Amino acid sequence: MSVLDKPYKLASRSLGAPSTTIPVGGAVLGSGDVVVMAGPCAVESRQQLLEAASGVSRHGAHVLRGGAYKPRSSPYSFQGLGERGLQLLREAREAYGLPIITEVMEPGTVGIVSQYADILQVGARNCQNYPLLREVGRVAKPVMLKRGSGCTVEEWIMAAEHIMSGGNMQVMLCERGIKTFETATRNTLDLSAVALAKRLTHLPVVVDPSHACGKWYLVKPMCLAAIAAGADGVLVEVHADPDAALCDGGQSLTIDNFGDCVTAIRRVATAVGRRVPASEPVAA
Amino acid sequence: MSVLDKPYKLASRSLGAPSTTIPVGGAVLGSGDVVVMAGPCAVESRQQLLEAASGVSRHGAHVLRGGAYKPRSSPYSFQGLGERGLQLLREAREAYGLPIITEVMEPGTVGIVSQYADILQVGARNCQNYPLLREVGRVAKPVMLKRGSGCTVEEWIMAAEHIMSGGNMQVMLCERGIKTFETATRNTLDLSAVALAKRLTHLPVVVDPSHACGKWYLVKPMCLAAIAAGADGVLVEVHADPDAALCDGGQSLTIDNFGDCVTAIRRVATAVGRRVPASEPVAA
Amino acid sequence: MSVLDKPYKLASRSLGAPSTTIPVGGAVLGSGDVVVMAGPCAVESRQQLLEAASGVSRHGAHVLRGGAYKPRSSPYSFQGLGERGLQLLREAREAYGLPIITEVMEPGTVGIVSQYADILQVGARNCQNYPLLREVGRVAKPVMLKRGSGCTVEEWIMAAEHIMSGGNMQVMLCERGIKTFETATRNTLDLSAVALAKRLTHLPVVVDPSHACGKWYLVKPMCLAAIAAGADGVLVEVHADPDAALCDGGQSLTIDNFGDCVTAIRRVATAVGRRVPASEPVAA
Amino acid sequence: MSVLDKPYKLASRSLGAPSTTIPVGGAVLGSGDVVVMAGPCAVESRQQLLEAASGVSRHGAHVLRGGAYKPRSSPYSFQGLGERGLQLLREAREAYGLPIITEVMEPGTVGIVSQYADILQVGARNCQNYPLLREVGRVAKPVMLKRGSGCTVEEWIMAAEHIMSGGNMQVMLCERGIKTFETATRNTLDLSAVALAKRLTHLPVVVDPSHACGKWYLVKPMCLAAIAAGADGVLVEVHADPDAALCDGGQSLTIDNFGDCVTAIRRVATAVGRRVPASEPVAA
Repeated sequence: MSVLDKPYKLASRSLGAPSTTIPVGGAVLGSGDVVVMAGPCAVESRQQLLEAASGVSRHGAHVLRGGAYKPRSSPYSFQGLGERGLQLLREAREAYGLPIITEVMEPGTVGIVSQYADILQVGARNCQNYPLLREVGRVAKPVMLKRGSGCTVEEWIMAAEHIMSGGNMQVMLCERGIKTFETATRNTLDLSAVALAKRLTHLPVVVDPSHACGKWYLVKPMCLAAIAAGADGVLVEVHADPDAALCDGGQSLTIDNFGDCVTAIRRVATAVGRRVPASEPVAA
Repeated sequence: MSVLDKPYKLASRSLGAPSTTIPVGGAVLGSGDVVVMAGPCAVESRQQLLEAASGVSRHGAHVLRGGAYKPRSSPYSFQGLGERGLQLLREAREAYGLPIITEVMEPGTVGIVSQYADILQVGARNCQNYPLLREVGRVAKPVMLKRGSGCTVEEWIMAAEHIMSGGNMQVMLCERGIKTFETATRNTLDLSAVALAKRLTHLPVVVDPSHACGKWYLVKPMCLAAIAAGADGVLVEVHADPDAALCDGGQSLTIDNFGDCVTAIRRVATAVGRRVPASEPVAA
Repeated sequence: MSVLDKPYKLASRSLGAPSTTIPVGGAVLGSGDVVVMAGPCAVESRQQLLEAASGVSRHGAHVLRGGAYKPRSSPYSFQGLGERGLQLLREAREAYGLPIITEVMEPGTVGIVSQYADILQVGARNCQNYPLLREVGRVAKPVMLKRGSGCTVEEWIMAAEHIMSGGNMQVMLCERGIKTFETATRNTLDLSAVALAKRLTHLPVVVDPSHACGKWYLVKPMCLAAIAAGADGVLVEVHADPDAALCDGGQSLTIDNFGDCVTAIRRVATAVGRRVPASEPVAA
Repeated sequence: MSVLDKPYKLASRSLGAPSTTIPVGGAVLGSGDVVVMAGPCAVESRQQLLEAASGVSRHGAHVLRGGAYKPRSSPYSFQGLGERGLQLLREAREAYGLPIITEVMEPGTVGIVSQYADILQVGARNCQNYPLLREVGRVAKPVMLKRGSGCTVEEWIMAAEHIMSGGNMQVMLCERGIKTFETATRNTLDLSAVALAKRLTHLPVVVDPSHACGKWYLVKPMCLAAIAAGADGVLVEVHADPDAALCDGGQSLTIDNFGDCVTAIRRVATAVGRRVPASEPVAA
């Protein structure tokens, strides 16, 4: 099947379609720049968030990540701080000049999350939540669409097509691991999907090795591999004190390890003819 | 890990928990009765729905299935008739006395779907859509929770726990196949998960072989296998003219084949000490 | 793709190909008879084997299974008794009149195993061991080919074709579970593959629920489901004292539970128009 | 579970175990050197092999790959040239000074393959062929063990342990993709397994992106990703005329593309503090 026969239209890298570019924090996703997004899995407290924001900012991150609304397998686990979490993200944004990416879980909260976030994240469990995709397709903010852990590359691109068919063309894809029989890692990071999605579509592709691997010591090698494979950026979990994290501590980098990771990313970026631009503060 | 150590509480078949029973169309799910739910994948038109309803009613189905809101991989495919589809389902309900099961896709439409449906269906793609689970956890209608095609048995039971923790204890599970490397079938029907879910929880478990297999000629053997494995019921796609179906025609039984399937189900039910009760019309 | 376009020729249920039938222990695999093969995972000792043989014989098994050469993930685990195990199998065969099925692991031992076994088993790990397939394709004994846990239905049938192209047409297939992301069971038993293999080929298909599920309490429901799905027989692990087994005790039935399982199989067989014939002793 | 609790002993990176190093073609696998192995999937003819050998030699490959005995899903496909293929490999070895890696498929041919090969390859389908592992564990040649497409990282390492427990410590692992639900690539390359295997064991790890991806245009990005992830080398299919290949042409690089790939590998190697040493001819 040629690219022209694909079931997706708007996302397709067909004849003449230019690459989608999304400016963010001094870098431009999709332009060849390597973009680094980092921060805690969940916003837990003012102090926790500001420490992480300070740390990732110091090491050159372009975007601060942090979950205010958390999809959790158990109804008895910490579900996130909700709007209070969004307010803390705004405070961190103002303090460190970092744009914010945070997850939106349902159509009814797209409005409020859009007031706070610079980039809306659609999580892996919602990759085929079409009412949510339709709703984020109507807002004027970039959307990062995580691949469902049970979704094929084609289903993932079709999910992007759902967003784009609503009018929002500022979509970036995010590979974060798929379900396989392997149990030594949380999921199996599919880096060939990154190279493939870059070839099939004109959308930027980001990699989240933290959720894919579930082990902090695999995050750095997988960040480097992602950039070498052609990813436009990485999304990394960082926590000032991973052992105390309420969520996913075992896969979080310390701030020092994050710094070491960014240094290595810079070298690999250069080796493949790309660069990690200096971070530029957003307007408050 | 013993049953008592499981992360789910309300769904667990712990000491002394009685089986959940859900009366529907003259049968009682979870009591040992074998319940048959059947109908078209999607409500396409008045005539199509009434023909299917007439056919499945004649062969003893207890519940009529049919989708008014359809989750589709492509934004360019038929998305269902929406509320018009719900109205047609009500008409079929009144004409044939069959209770209705239909899918609800987002928190914002739980209200309207609840006005029409006897059983709310949460589809496989929404198995971990927690805002939706929370919302159906607040209504006074039974909920059928399909297993996500990328969900483990534990994740599936935890999703049921999300519904139950909202107060709605009328939950039935539905196995409909998981994603595997096998491509000869649409998904891989996991019947060991049925026996396992019956052992781990006190919830009824239904099997949908149509979506799992994607081939009409595998539906009957998998219905029989499901009942032999201990399932409380089956959910089968039936269409008066599968070749003309707008959705999933290749996996739909004709009305005659459905009749043949029910006859065989009756025999296997008897062999395992159970029965397919006579269908009883619902009050209009 | 029609059946006639398949890459397999000899195994294909093409126009006019009669079902392959294999007489064994008073039953005929592939004729509609339901065949029961049972015994310990591994031959551990004379007493252990004879107790198991006595037990399964008493409950009507047609064939005695038991491994003399054991493929084990660890080089430090019990590897089987080798030829001494074959001698014990012969003794059990003579004592109880049960034909023997046992695994052959390499081309070089096909000769000796053939001297003792009534049916040669090719294990899941060797499903694509083509030199071994070629070698068992040259002997005048029936071969049971287990599906590799990473093999598609087509790869499995092509493996049978390797055997048949060597001249040995007495091949039966055995579904024993595939690798998936589900961890609650050892593998995922794929019963739709049974119905599919029966449709695509003229070969008998047997199901091994013990290895697939890895939990003894799932063996009976999966035996019943297998027969309901159209399997020609089951292969069940039975041990007089599962807690003391050197290999796979957790998935072995006790002799009493095996008897209960066979009783239930008889009822389901009748419900689908088939029967479990009386076992007939082999000539010593 | 700590490294010390692992079921493997000889392969484990336990306290004080030095990295296994294997000198080959002027480079040392496991020392930090990046080793490039390349050549055709199968030896098809004298001309085809010599053209490929000339091409990969010119671009700095350290080892020539080529299959003389080919495991093929179909008994009707080209099965390799057998010993004639080994003789052609020897001729290419002498002509270009490249050491040879080639597959051995059964215990009975380990002897003859060892006479020709510098490195024995155990293919993915034979990863758990224990009699073969035992046999290659007795020879004095390095062995490359491909991960089975259905094997977990632990099963793969245990397979290496089988070889090592026979006395042969010169084992290198090779990741070549696992079976998953994704169909856009032939298998799913698991690069996190590379980083993990390097951490859990002291064995060198090589990556074969050609078989994993099945598409030539994914080979270069996956080679770069593999090196960035910490792999000790890559194994790449190269054919002077991929469209005319008897086997796997769609995943083969042309000689020019291979040259471009090596140039890019050199840059990434440098970025991660490593190097691609100059190739040195073997003694004839």
